Amino acid sequence: MIQLSDFRSVIDQYKIVFFDAFGVLKNYKGLVPGIENTFEYLEAQNKEFYIVTNDASRSPVQLAESYHRAGLYAVTADRIVSSGMLAKEYLDLKVHEGIVAYLGTPNSAHYIDDSDLHTLPVSSIDESNIDKVSALVFLDDEGFDWFKDLNTAVNLIRKRPIPVIVANTDFSYPVTKNEVSIAAGGIASMIETIVGRKFIRFGKPDSQMFMFAYDLIRERRPIVKKDIVMVGDTLHTDILGGNKFGFDTILVLSGNTLPGDAITRINATGIVPTYICDSAVVE
Amino acid sequence: MIQLSDFRSVIDQYKIVFFDAFGVLKNYKGLVPGIENTFEYLEAQNKEFYIVTNDASRSPVQLAESYHRAGLYAVTADRIVSSGMLAKEYLDLKVHEGIVAYLGTPNSAHYIDDSDLHTLPVSSIDESNIDKVSALVFLDDEGFDWFKDLNTAVNLIRKRPIPVIVANTDFSYPVTKNEVSIAAGGIASMIETIVGRKFIRFGKPDSQMFMFAYDLIRERRPIVKKDIVMVGDTLHTDILGGNKFGFDTILVLSGNTLPGDAITRINATGIVPTYICDSAVVE
Amino acid sequence: MIQLSDFRSVIDQYKIVFFDAFGVLKNYKGLVPGIENTFEYLEAQNKEFYIVTNDASRSPVQLAESYHRAGLYAVTADRIVSSGMLAKEYLDLKVHEGIVAYLGTPNSAHYIDDSDLHTLPVSSIDESNIDKVSALVFLDDEGFDWFKDLNTAVNLIRKRPIPVIVANTDFSYPVTKNEVSIAAGGIASMIETIVGRKFIRFGKPDSQMFMFAYDLIRERRPIVKKDIVMVGDTLHTDILGGNKFGFDTILVLSGNTLPGDAITRINATGIVPTYICDSAVVE
Amino acid sequence: MIQLSDFRSVIDQYKIVFFDAFGVLKNYKGLVPGIENTFEYLEAQNKEFYIVTNDASRSPVQLAESYHRAGLYAVTADRIVSSGMLAKEYLDLKVHEGIVAYLGTPNSAHYIDDSDLHTLPVSSIDESNIDKVSALVFLDDEGFDWFKDLNTAVNLIRKRPIPVIVANTDFSYPVTKNEVSIAAGGIASMIETIVGRKFIRFGKPDSQMFMFAYDLIRERRPIVKKDIVMVGDTLHTDILGGNKFGFDTILVLSGNTLPGDAITRINATGIVPTYICDSAVVE
Repeated sequence: MIQLSDFRSVIDQYKIVFFDAFGVLKNYKGLVPGIENTFEYLEAQNKEFYIVTNDASRSPVQLAESYHRAGLYAVTADRIVSSGMLAKEYLDLKVHEGIVAYLGTPNSAHYIDDSDLHTLPVSSIDESNIDKVSALVFLDDEGFDWFKDLNTAVNLIRKRPIPVIVANTDFSYPVTKNEVSIAAGGIASMIETIVGRKFIRFGKPDSQMFMFAYDLIRERRPIVKKDIVMVGDTLHTDILGGNKFGFDTILVLSGNTLPGDAITRINATGIVPTYICDSAVVE
Repeated sequence: MIQLSDFRSVIDQYKIVFFDAFGVLKNYKGLVPGIENTFEYLEAQNKEFYIVTNDASRSPVQLAESYHRAGLYAVTADRIVSSGMLAKEYLDLKVHEGIVAYLGTPNSAHYIDDSDLHTLPVSSIDESNIDKVSALVFLDDEGFDWFKDLNTAVNLIRKRPIPVIVANTDFSYPVTKNEVSIAAGGIASMIETIVGRKFIRFGKPDSQMFMFAYDLIRERRPIVKKDIVMVGDTLHTDILGGNKFGFDTILVLSGNTLPGDAITRINATGIVPTYICDSAVVE
Repeated sequence: MIQLSDFRSVIDQYKIVFFDAFGVLKNYKGLVPGIENTFEYLEAQNKEFYIVTNDASRSPVQLAESYHRAGLYAVTADRIVSSGMLAKEYLDLKVHEGIVAYLGTPNSAHYIDDSDLHTLPVSSIDESNIDKVSALVFLDDEGFDWFKDLNTAVNLIRKRPIPVIVANTDFSYPVTKNEVSIAAGGIASMIETIVGRKFIRFGKPDSQMFMFAYDLIRERRPIVKKDIVMVGDTLHTDILGGNKFGFDTILVLSGNTLPGDAITRINATGIVPTYICDSAVVE
Repeated sequence: MIQLSDFRSVIDQYKIVFFDAFGVLKNYKGLVPGIENTFEYLEAQNKEFYIVTNDASRSPVQLAESYHRAGLYAVTADRIVSSGMLAKEYLDLKVHEGIVAYLGTPNSAHYIDDSDLHTLPVSSIDESNIDKVSALVFLDDEGFDWFKDLNTAVNLIRKRPIPVIVANTDFSYPVTKNEVSIAAGGIASMIETIVGRKFIRFGKPDSQMFMFAYDLIRERRPIVKKDIVMVGDTLHTDILGGNKFGFDTILVLSGNTLPGDAITRINATGIVPTYICDSAVVE
C-alpha cells in the first residue's frame, strides 16, 4: 500500500528544493495546474529553488521565457540548471580551438557558441573543413535531416578521434498523453553502438548535474546536502541521481511514474525515494 | 605471423561452398575483380555453392539480376539465401492476418508480401488502421523519412504488443572506401533500446541463416556439416556464425578485415577461422 | 482479461509437442503433479514429444534417469535435447585436438568427453598445459571453486585465442519457491564483460536448439514446422525461440510466468504465445 | 607518431596534481621506481596533490600505511580520495537505520561502519535478520565465499527493495605482469545482469570522485578546474573522467596503456588526454 506524503509538509523540512521540469512543473499540455501556488509558497517561506533539467534544446534564458509566457514568472534563468549548460562548460574548459559540429537546431547551438569556438551544423561538414572539427555535440532531436546528417556524424566520428558530447541523456520525451518522441540521447545511443565508442553524456542521473546546481548555491552561502530535496517524476533519472548525490528525494506521480505503478517500479528497481507525493502542487 | 592458405586448395577439400556477398564477391565499387574465375572453377569441379547474405533490401531474384548486370551469370536466385527470406518465412508461418507495417523501400516490401497479408509502409499507419497492424518489419535503411517514421514506429510498438522483425542484423555497411552507411539493423537497435523490447533478428551470425541454406541442400541430397565451408570477410558474422553452426570457415581479407589487422582481431575476439586467404578469387 | 485455452484441446491440433523441462514438467519440488497423465495421453494419441532444455549439467541418459526416479518413465534419453548436446556437437565438429578446459562437475564433463579430446577442469590448468588448451566450456555452476577457478578462466581467455562455449544460456534457476541460484550462463556473462569477448552460447531462445530437435525427427519421417507446438513457461527463451523458429507456442503458467503477470509481460515484451494454458497437465 | 611530453614540464603548469594509484604510483611489484622523486619535487614546489583511487578494500589510513611501509611517506591519509569514501558518505547521508550487508573483508567493512548502522557480512544474513537489511555494499572481491555468498546476495536483492552500492567500478585489477583478478565491480556487474537492477556505482570515471577531491581543496582555498591536472594510466576511467569533469589530463604509459597501443586506443575510443608522458616519475 502506497504511503503518500503531503508535499507542503515535506518541503517544510528543507531549505532548498530542486525540481525536475517535465512531468513535475509542466507536461505536454503546458504548466501543471496550480504549480504557481508552489512557487508563491516557496517565496513566502523564503526557500530557494532550482530547476534541474535534461534539456539542451534552448538556453536557460529561453527556457525561462517559456515559463513566463505560460504565466509562471518565478522561474528565472538563474534558477535553471540544464544539461546543455554542462555541455557548454565542457566545451569552454576542454575544447580550445577548431569547429564544434552539432546536431540540433540553430537555437540549441547558439548558446553553446563561444568567442574562441565556431559551431557548425553537421550538415555543413565536408572534405574542406572536417580536419578542423574538434568536437561533436548532440543537442536536440530536431533541426537536421536524420538520414543525411546521422550518416555524416557516423563517418565524422570514424575518421576523427574527437570527443563526442551528448547534452541530454533522455531516450525519449512525451509529446501527447500517449505518444513520445525520440530524444537526442536515444539517437546518440544508436550512433554509440554503431561506432563502438563511449560518448561523454551530461544529464541526470549523472552527479555532475546536481553538483553544478549545488555549487551555484555554495558560491553564495554555506549549505549541506541534507538541506536539499530533489523533486522528480522519474525513478531512473531524478530519484536515482538525487539519491546517489546524497540528497533526500520526492517522487511525484504527475508524470512518468503512474500512481498505480509506483510501488511495483520501486520494488523492481530498488530505487527508493525518501517520499512519494501526488504532485508538486501546494494546495 | 599470418599463415595464408591458397583459396583453391582449401575449397578443393569441400563439396559445397557458402559465400558472404559484400566484401567477398563484391564491394562498394562492384564485383571483386576476378571473382568470375571462382565460379567457373566451382562449376568445372561440380561443386555446389550458395550466397548467404544479410540483405533484406531486395528479393533473391533482384539480387541475382544485379550480379548478372555486373557480368556474373553463375549467381542465380535459387543460390541466394538472404535474411529477408527468413523474415518472409517468419511472416508466412506466424502472422496470419492483419497489416504488416514496414520500414524500407517498396521493393523490399514487395517480396515479403503474401496473399493473406497486407504490407503498408509505417508512414501510412494512422489512427484508422493501427489496431489492425499485426507485425512490424525493419527491411531497409532507405525508402522512408527517418525522423517522422522512426517516431511513428516507436509509438506503434509502445501501443501494440506485436512482434518486431529485423531482417538485417548489420549495424552499418560500406558505401565508399572509407565511409559507411547506417544499416537497418543499427536503426532497429536504437528503437529496441528506446522501447525496452527484444526484437526478432534474422541474419548472420544467427544459426537460422545457415540452417536455411543447409536445409535447401538436404532436400535434394544427403550432406553433413563437414562437407561445407563458409567464406566471409567479417569475424563477428560470417566466421562466428559458421563456426557455431559447425562449418569450417575461411576468412578472406578483401573486405571488413584488413590484412594488417587480421591476427590482432582474431586474438582479441577469440573468433578463429579454419583458414585465412587473401581473397575468394581462384587465380 | 487473460484467455486461457484447454491444454488437451490445443495439443490435439499438433502431431508433435516440444516441452521445456523446468517450470513445465518439474519444479524445485519435483515433478509437476499430474504431468504423467499428459504423457499417457500423448502415447495413447500416438503423438511424438521432445524435451528441449537449457541444461548442460548432465547427459541425456542421466537426465532421463532423474525422471524415472521420480516416477515418469515416458521420458527416455532419446527424447531429450539439451544445450549440452549442442556444446558436444560443436566440440566434435570444430575442436580436433588439445585439451578442453571446463567449469562444472565431473558429471557434466563426462558426456562432452570424446576419444580425440581430453577434458580437464579449469582447476587443473597451469603453466605446464595452458598452451595445449583448445577450448573452454561453461557447463555447470557447481563443481568448482568460484573464486579460484573463475579468476583462472579469465586469465586463460586473456592469454589464448580459444573459443569459449557456454552450454546454458540461463542466468539463474529456481531452487525453492522464492529463491534462485546463479546459473552457468550468468557466470559466463560476467566473464564475457570482463574479458571483452563474445562467447559461443548454446540454448534457447537460439534457433540451433530447435533445429537440433527438428532434425532428429526429420531423419525418420517428413515433417513441417506447423506440425509442432512448443510448450514453455518463459517468454524470453521458450516462447521467443519457438516463435522465431516458426513453431506455434503455448505459454504455461506453472513456472516463471505467474498467472497475474502474464498479460502485462506479454504486452511489455511483445513476445506473444499462440496459446496460454494453466499448465501442461492433461486432466 | 606519439608525442611524449616531459612530466615535470607539464605539472609545472598546474597548482594541483591528482594521481591515480595503480599503474601510476605503484604496480603489482610495489612502488614505481623513482616515484618518491616526484613527491619531493611536488613538496619543493609547494604543489598540492591527491590520490584519487577506485579502491574500497581499505580505509584511507590503511592505504596510506601501505605507502609508508613501501617507503613513500609523502602520501598521508588526508591526501587519499577513494571510491570507498563515497560509499561511506552515501551510507551516512542516505541509510539511517538497519543492517548494511556487505561483500568484502572485515577490513573493508570496518571503515564504512558507523554509530547508527550495523554492518554484517552477507554470509551472516538469514531469515532472522533479512528484513532489517537496509542496504547492500560490494566492497572487495576477497573475504567471502563467492559461490555461497553471491547466491545469497542475489536472493537478498530479489526479496528486498534496498539500494545496492558498488564501491569500486573496476572490472579487474592486475596481480602479476600478465595476470588479472576479477574486481568487486566485475562481480557486481554479473549480479546486476541477473537481478535486472541498476546499482549505485562509485568510482572513476564518475564525476562524483573528482568532485569529492575538488571539494576537499575548496574548503580551504579558492580554486578553479584549470588549476588541476589528473594523471592516470587508463583511458576509460582516469582520462575520460578527468576530461568530463573539466580537468586537463596526463596519460602515463607505466600501467594499463602500453606505449605501443596508446595512439591506437586513443583513436579507437576518442578519449584524448591533454598530454602523454612515459611515467609520473620526475627524473
